[in-house]
Amino acid sequence: MGQTITEKIFSEHVGKKVYAGEIVRSPIDMVIGNDITTPISIRAFEEGGFKKLANPDGFAIVLDHFIPAKDIASANQAKISRDFALKYNLKNFFDEKDMGIEHALLPEKGLVIPGDVIIGADSHTCTHGALGAFSTGMGSTDISFGMITGGNWFKVPESIKVVFNGRPSKYVTGKDLILEIIRILGVDGALYKALEFTGDTIKYLSMDDRFSLCNMAIEAGAKNGIVAYDEITKEFLDSRDSLRAEPKIHYSDEDAVYCQEIVIDVEKLEPVIAYPYLPSNGHSVSQAVKDDIKVDQVFIGSCTNGRLSDFKVAAEILKDKKVARHVRLILTPGTQKILREATKLGYIDTLVDAGAVVSNPTCGACLGGYMGILGDNEVCISTTNRNFVGRMGSRSSKIYLANSAVAAASAISGYITDPRSL
Amino acid sequence: MGQTITEKIFSEHVGKKVYAGEIVRSPIDMVIGNDITTPISIRAFEEGGFKKLANPDGFAIVLDHFIPAKDIASANQAKISRDFALKYNLKNFFDEKDMGIEHALLPEKGLVIPGDVIIGADSHTCTHGALGAFSTGMGSTDISFGMITGGNWFKVPESIKVVFNGRPSKYVTGKDLILEIIRILGVDGALYKALEFTGDTIKYLSMDDRFSLCNMAIEAGAKNGIVAYDEITKEFLDSRDSLRAEPKIHYSDEDAVYCQEIVIDVEKLEPVIAYPYLPSNGHSVSQAVKDDIKVDQVFIGSCTNGRLSDFKVAAEILKDKKVARHVRLILTPGTQKILREATKLGYIDTLVDAGAVVSNPTCGACLGGYMGILGDNEVCISTTNRNFVGRMGSRSSKIYLANSAVAAASAISGYITDPRSL
Repeated sequence: MGQTITEKIFSEHVGKKVYAGEIVRSPIDMVIGNDITTPISIRAFEEGGFKKLANPDGFAIVLDHFIPAKDIASANQAKISRDFALKYNLKNFFDEKDMGIEHALLPEKGLVIPGDVIIGADSHTCTHGALGAFSTGMGSTDISFGMITGGNWFKVPESIKVVFNGRPSKYVTGKDLILEIIRILGVDGALYKALEFTGDTIKYLSMDDRFSLCNMAIEAGAKNGIVAYDEITKEFLDSRDSLRAEPKIHYSDEDAVYCQEIVIDVEKLEPVIAYPYLPSNGHSVSQAVKDDIKVDQVFIGSCTNGRLSDFKVAAEILKDKKVARHVRLILTPGTQKILREATKLGYIDTLVDAGAVVSNPTCGACLGGYMGILGDNEVCISTTNRNFVGRMGSRSSKIYLANSAVAAASAISGYITDPRSL
Repeated sequence: MGQTITEKIFSEHVGKKVYAGEIVRSPIDMVIGNDITTPISIRAFEEGGFKKLANPDGFAIVLDHFIPAKDIASANQAKISRDFALKYNLKNFFDEKDMGIEHALLPEKGLVIPGDVIIGADSHTCTHGALGAFSTGMGSTDISFGMITGGNWFKVPESIKVVFNGRPSKYVTGKDLILEIIRILGVDGALYKALEFTGDTIKYLSMDDRFSLCNMAIEAGAKNGIVAYDEITKEFLDSRDSLRAEPKIHYSDEDAVYCQEIVIDVEKLEPVIAYPYLPSNGHSVSQAVKDDIKVDQVFIGSCTNGRLSDFKVAAEILKDKKVARHVRLILTPGTQKILREATKLGYIDTLVDAGAVVSNPTCGACLGGYMGILGDNEVCISTTNRNFVGRMGSRSSKIYLANSAVAAASAISGYITDPRSL
């Protein structure tokens, strides 16, 4: 019987053919924790009396949520991870020294490999599926189990086949594709399913687009999102300084079984904006323009859209323009490397000239952490992934989710703007 | 009777010769508020039913303490200043668009002029005395009075004449001179006095050094710190894009009356480190090396030492070196422009290669705001201005104040280190 790529990854890991619905104990290639979630895992590890990590080089701690420390609690919390990393001499410990948002940093460092099974104590761990890996978010105690045993239990997910047809028009990005999928499926439409992204559109999607696409799979409730390896994946991997392991390349069989198929005509799609208060509340940018939505803050960044192409398009749109007087434009690069490249290419100068401020890489504003929190009744257009009530600050604030081109265009006028109209 | 420079500034402002001890109502050239202090001033202004600023172009609001917003309260607080700046169409409103720490930003923008009388609702407003202005911190309601009337009441301060003799040796900076003065005077040794910095050492001090020097005058309790106009001042002013007004240059008369004179042999001075928990607790770096002080965090930034020369010396020291594994190095530039220049000159690349993280310009960590808060029992060597109990975070943390060279050198070893020993 044919298999999906997700089924093949588990089959390869457990040494026999397995299918959706089966419960397997699979080895894990990479276990990820951050400054919020790792201390809980460490406590479970230490309370259990364990002294050895099953696979130290397959365990990464990334301090990205509240570092440099927002407050005393953040500093104390980070210290638990720091001390553990020093004690176990962890190779993959990232703090202020080599900062990045985990889901931007790990692929950049060559730590995510096609065919991997990855778990992370962060819901957007599904991002890494963009490289043809199985990658999913789990709780901190599951992370402990991964740290201790090097594996974990999984129910192999059923897959929804998403078929994207056609070439995206200008300013239609991976972010718009996933917002459209979530609009169709709803926030629980893919519960415990794999979202397998296929179709001829994929070849037009850069790795940055694919990361955005898989990043928000969780917003439809999916267990994972996945894009199969191709030339663009290869090019990305080839340009890493090093790779953690050799890629294991899998493709879904033609007779693989899917629980659902969704076909999207991408050529007809325009930029999608998710209105408050759900990522599934998608509207076309044309509709948003008609709705005359004034914004106080524009945020470009996060594990969803804080990559080089985001700053590139924002710089193109904001070149020789000024951010509206009533608006603040906050840029948060995904990693230090992205920031450096965006600086070298002149994007940052252009954006700062326009009136932007650039933070260090951090999850910061996206989760209402810091570095761009919304006050009462404030409105933000944001390239992030969630627009729940109070997600970025006050419960009376509102978040519109969009791609970086729409966000940049909106910064100029101070109203949600169609970048195609500029 | 001869006059000090401070007496001359007030005399020129009130139109008659005035001397220390006299109470005068002086016009003010520049009134400064920040995101914490301005809302209180605005409330007093509005509750008084006032509708007009006496001198709108002589009023600057700089959002620098908790912006981009740390939390909902910060966002709401900033909104009060934003709305006021929009309503009154303030020319000198600085938020995310043109970020900077007020005491670095205003001189950079040509808004501080020799001979000015300046008040700011921030204790380190004394920084601006480096340009030969009278500049002092006041409370928010005094700021309101300045906003409404364009002036305020002052008791003309007595002056302490500080005479620095000789050329500072390598790695002895303006920061070390002021730490030495505070060590001698104590934190209340100059209460309501002007600290007038003179002597042949002055000609060796860059504007950056002079800003550090005057910045910490308040840490000895001084009303203001002041350095008379010279070629270095002129060069700084000439390199501004524009100046708010023409300089009014004053020099103390030879027969001016001082309440105290302190003479420092600068040639013998080595870098000074203020131990916890007072800026007056100065020790030589040699002593600190003997004391074997391990640090968790190194902070280079703030209105005291977040200028171009700070990043230059740090980059020289950290070139091709690495920050110690147990240490985080946080850099906070004083302004966006400083950050851009430091980037263009390669300092930032060098420092990031060494393991630093760079924040946006903000008062942040210095006042225990955010972006580098200390956890329990953590130790920080910091280029900031205060090392009181809990100043940068936990009450059990410890801060050692130093210059940027000492801080950078300490980042390599993770122990307080003499940069001259490298």
